[in-house]
Amino acid sequence: MARRVGIKDVAQEAGVSLTTVSHALNDSLNGRVNAETRERIKEIARRMNYHPNRLARGLRTNSSGMIGLLTEEIATTPHAGRIILGAQEAASRHNLTLAIINSALQADADERRNDVLALLDRHVDGIIYATVYHDTVTPPEELGSVPAVLIGATDRTGRVSSVVPDERQGAADAVRHLIAAGHRRIAFLPSLVDVPATRGRLLGYEDAIREAGLEVDPALQSPGEPEARGGYAATIDLLDRGGDPTAIFAYNDRMAMGVYRALAERRRRIPQDVSVIGFDDQAPIAGSLFPGLTTVALPHYEMGAWAVETLTTLLNDDGAHAESVRMPCRTVERESIAAPRKPRARATSSRA
Amino acid sequence: MARRVGIKDVAQEAGVSLTTVSHALNDSLNGRVNAETRERIKEIARRMNYHPNRLARGLRTNSSGMIGLLTEEIATTPHAGRIILGAQEAASRHNLTLAIINSALQADADERRNDVLALLDRHVDGIIYATVYHDTVTPPEELGSVPAVLIGATDRTGRVSSVVPDERQGAADAVRHLIAAGHRRIAFLPSLVDVPATRGRLLGYEDAIREAGLEVDPALQSPGEPEARGGYAATIDLLDRGGDPTAIFAYNDRMAMGVYRALAERRRRIPQDVSVIGFDDQAPIAGSLFPGLTTVALPHYEMGAWAVETLTTLLNDDGAHAESVRMPCRTVERESIAAPRKPRARATSSRA
Repeated sequence: MARRVGIKDVAQEAGVSLTTVSHALNDSLNGRVNAETRERIKEIARRMNYHPNRLARGLRTNSSGMIGLLTEEIATTPHAGRIILGAQEAASRHNLTLAIINSALQADADERRNDVLALLDRHVDGIIYATVYHDTVTPPEELGSVPAVLIGATDRTGRVSSVVPDERQGAADAVRHLIAAGHRRIAFLPSLVDVPATRGRLLGYEDAIREAGLEVDPALQSPGEPEARGGYAATIDLLDRGGDPTAIFAYNDRMAMGVYRALAERRRRIPQDVSVIGFDDQAPIAGSLFPGLTTVALPHYEMGAWAVETLTTLLNDDGAHAESVRMPCRTVERESIAAPRKPRARATSSRA
Repeated sequence: MARRVGIKDVAQEAGVSLTTVSHALNDSLNGRVNAETRERIKEIARRMNYHPNRLARGLRTNSSGMIGLLTEEIATTPHAGRIILGAQEAASRHNLTLAIINSALQADADERRNDVLALLDRHVDGIIYATVYHDTVTPPEELGSVPAVLIGATDRTGRVSSVVPDERQGAADAVRHLIAAGHRRIAFLPSLVDVPATRGRLLGYEDAIREAGLEVDPALQSPGEPEARGGYAATIDLLDRGGDPTAIFAYNDRMAMGVYRALAERRRRIPQDVSVIGFDDQAPIAGSLFPGLTTVALPHYEMGAWAVETLTTLLNDDGAHAESVRMPCRTVERESIAAPRKPRARATSSRA
């Protein structure tokens, strides 16, 4: 393994002083290095594979050029992946590096505090603190020692800026898609797990139903565990109770996976007999189900990018106020929604 | 936003010199700081939220304490997430930070080279270069300027150490599980996409079939696109051709998702009528299907950890030789395998 090439090596190779190399490589106007020498030194540096030492630059500017991202669930869902991607691409645009620490999903306050300390020990310029399944959190006090932002929860103390998905708007949009296709008997399969998304998506469903001048009908709601099995059982229960929906809005894509199976067993075709919409745009489910599942995407990429952009603002402006942002959720159209049939009329005529 | 606390602030607060603080915080034996003073200074540093400056330490040791990870597909599958998690946890154990850059999946050589240069510009101590779907790669020349390892492909030039999943062993193990349960007519649904996994898994299937003294029967192979639709079509085709397997090994979990649907439509129960095994242990499919899908896990976490451990060895030992490692794939048992029924006998008796 070759030793890393330093500025001294370049100076020696070029037969000039360290100062001359430094001025040449930094295009310094004060350096009085003529253009020819400057180009020659740059060419030598390139050929020798020299890279300027960011550590030294960091000491001069009191900046490491590094943003710390503390996240959960890296390994179990692609959600964290999209946050990372959004943050990383925004960081690259600002010439910043993203350093990542994964917190255990059930980490306690002390463990989270230690994760923050580990990032501070790396002298990050700022910290993105990403969580899932929380309304509000009380971030570790140490988070206050550098600019910081939260993803996925708001700060109980109101000091730290935050961004969360607008679950309510996303759910309302999903139902509006069904209403626009002509549906009136729209079932909702709520989750039995009490997280912010559960409450937001139920409110959004009710918003859109009322907005269309329809009644919120308890017979059209069938809750379940937010998994494929839960969606399956909730759908079977709904059909057995005679809920008779023309469309089903599942709390998430995993439940929608169970809806597909239940409808297949009951010989109801999607979307000809029943339209289905999910939530999460969870890979690979939404694209693997066939027909492809129309669903609502969580803005993970956008939240990651927003976090970095907000941090760079905080880094440049000490006086910036904390803000809480709700980021809109976009419906992703595939093939699981069609206009409702008139099932009874068709059934009668086909029997005649 | 408070200014970052420096060693000067601690010295001022403690009323001692910078040198005394430095010796106290570094537990230096030469510093001749008495124990009481040392503890007092440490307490003050803690209270003031002082963190030693890694940048300065990095300049002294010519090490940034940072490992660069170049990866693809962060956002689209949880696979990269598990590589990141394995690498990050191993990095933490070595007191290293993981800096991540995501490459576009179809990035060309120039783009990949630029990604490597971006990491070198951060003065990373070493680079993990992770790819998917390749046998061999020719890594950018610049990768040679620091210790580096490859994940997911071997180096065509043989200079850089690498780790890949042992697809062949994993597939053979999957089939051995079916054979151990008593199956003899074991179908395989190969992928139509030519990647290393396609070839390795087919070889592993044939290994285990022959090892059990069985014949590799072309009638029991039904290829498809490596997606749910492909697995569905391949299964329907297999059954329509009268392949009559008691067990199906699907190339991947997405294909297995289609196998489930095809078997449900044909009223064949899993595992009572047909056993099914997949490959990838892809979240959330394998755990969402019901019965839960027995499948083979790719060692992504382990490969990420291996990469960091190997880098630390290279960092400490200039003379270490490049090695190519195949990492075993472990079968994850859920509920989709049972002993084969004698279907014809039962069918006859139930009709009687």
